[in-house]
Amino acid sequence: MNADVQDCIVLLGDSLTQGGWEPHGFAQRLSFVYARKLDVINRGLSGYNTEWAIPVFEQFFAKCKAQETLPKVQLMTIWFGANDSCIKPSPQHVPLPAFAANLSKLVNFVKSPDSVYYSPTTRVVLITPPPVNTRHRGAQLAARDPPQDLDRKFDVTREYAEAVKEVGRKEGVPVVDIWTSIWEATGKVEEDLTKYLKDGLHLNADGYTFVYDDLNNTIKESYPEIHYEALEFVFPYWGEVANSPDPLKALTRRDIFTGEYRV
Amino acid sequence: MNADVQDCIVLLGDSLTQGGWEPHGFAQRLSFVYARKLDVINRGLSGYNTEWAIPVFEQFFAKCKAQETLPKVQLMTIWFGANDSCIKPSPQHVPLPAFAANLSKLVNFVKSPDSVYYSPTTRVVLITPPPVNTRHRGAQLAARDPPQDLDRKFDVTREYAEAVKEVGRKEGVPVVDIWTSIWEATGKVEEDLTKYLKDGLHLNADGYTFVYDDLNNTIKESYPEIHYEALEFVFPYWGEVANSPDPLKALTRRDIFTGEYRV
Repeated sequence: MNADVQDCIVLLGDSLTQGGWEPHGFAQRLSFVYARKLDVINRGLSGYNTEWAIPVFEQFFAKCKAQETLPKVQLMTIWFGANDSCIKPSPQHVPLPAFAANLSKLVNFVKSPDSVYYSPTTRVVLITPPPVNTRHRGAQLAARDPPQDLDRKFDVTREYAEAVKEVGRKEGVPVVDIWTSIWEATGKVEEDLTKYLKDGLHLNADGYTFVYDDLNNTIKESYPEIHYEALEFVFPYWGEVANSPDPLKALTRRDIFTGEYRV
Repeated sequence: MNADVQDCIVLLGDSLTQGGWEPHGFAQRLSFVYARKLDVINRGLSGYNTEWAIPVFEQFFAKCKAQETLPKVQLMTIWFGANDSCIKPSPQHVPLPAFAANLSKLVNFVKSPDSVYYSPTTRVVLITPPPVNTRHRGAQLAARDPPQDLDRKFDVTREYAEAVKEVGRKEGVPVVDIWTSIWEATGKVEEDLTKYLKDGLHLNADGYTFVYDDLNNTIKESYPEIHYEALEFVFPYWGEVANSPDPLKALTRRDIFTGEYRV
């Protein structure tokens, strides 16, 4: 693959992250605005919870020594809770204290200098799960063959969203609070979640707009140096090459933060 | 960045490739269907021609030794011609023989065992530039301040598209012939290119559908082993984890071709 030319953003999460590749999803929109600046790597795994995310993280995230010869992760979003908050006896259920501990563990994998995955360049953002439309979800599960019981509760998912915010405070990591943004956008009416959730659980394009906009604002506030508007292209605007007395030199890869040549 | 867990597809080209990240663009659609199988890395550079792509390639593509510790490129699309075919005195113009030679050079960077970038895992696909709607493009340029002359000709771009096909034959590389697909879809009426080109030059979502569909078919025919339907997830479907007597083992990363554990 490509050598140390373009760093990346990693999106770690469940189906809400995996589905970020849909048209107007947050991965698609990030890829578009970060083109030629940072690559977007999607590690969204449909159905996964934080318990399963830990061994996955331990395999996909490079250890300190290996990081030296790989593109750096400049930003990582961690977005779980939609499955952890499944109610028993769902095999996806993770008890609330374990969920919070797992999130802290994921954060500290990259932020703790004692971790073998310590990555001082990686800025972390946590994202809360969206509210659940239990009527919509319940109707969909009841219509399956055989019919299934409702597997999520509105107030339980809210507790998991609260736990994400608490982990953010404890670990000093910014939180994109999609739960609240979407809930308030409905005027706090569960039935009106159909505007943003296509099946009571997964976001539609309008739902993803909250994720993209809120994440964009969080980057601007907490990590302004990697907001896409603050970054330079690795390889310059074509007009600069065309007008350069030395096009080959103009085509030298650049530092996205300073615009200086990297040789 | 992530270690050697998920390989990738690289898209090399100009603005038509860079714009592949738009909703319904071919990069977005590939990312969606290859999720959890191969990452999609977009090296589309708006305005660039093959002359400028060569030094860019030499910087972003890893040399043989470095490839050992980086994700492998399983597929690379090379899509130029839309700018090379600009007519003189455009600084983007590349003479037709040089264009063909540059394309061959890019192909052989990865396919020739003598190349320092030789990558035996990298399958290559060439893509032709789409036809130009010179009336639409001309009107847009004339409306600029100051007005600009038409910079592309219908028949010239067709010659560059033909050259791509000739390079494909010569180098034994499959070609996605977007020029012909789109031209035939209009019934060979230049004005009707407005159905697929938003400004006479760049594809809209319907235009990208040809790129995605034709590329998908080409992969199926020429490289069926990496068609997305033939590949396994690196990390399995969640139900397999939930039902496993040993969830940790079930979460071991897998070979996308065989589905076997990779340790």
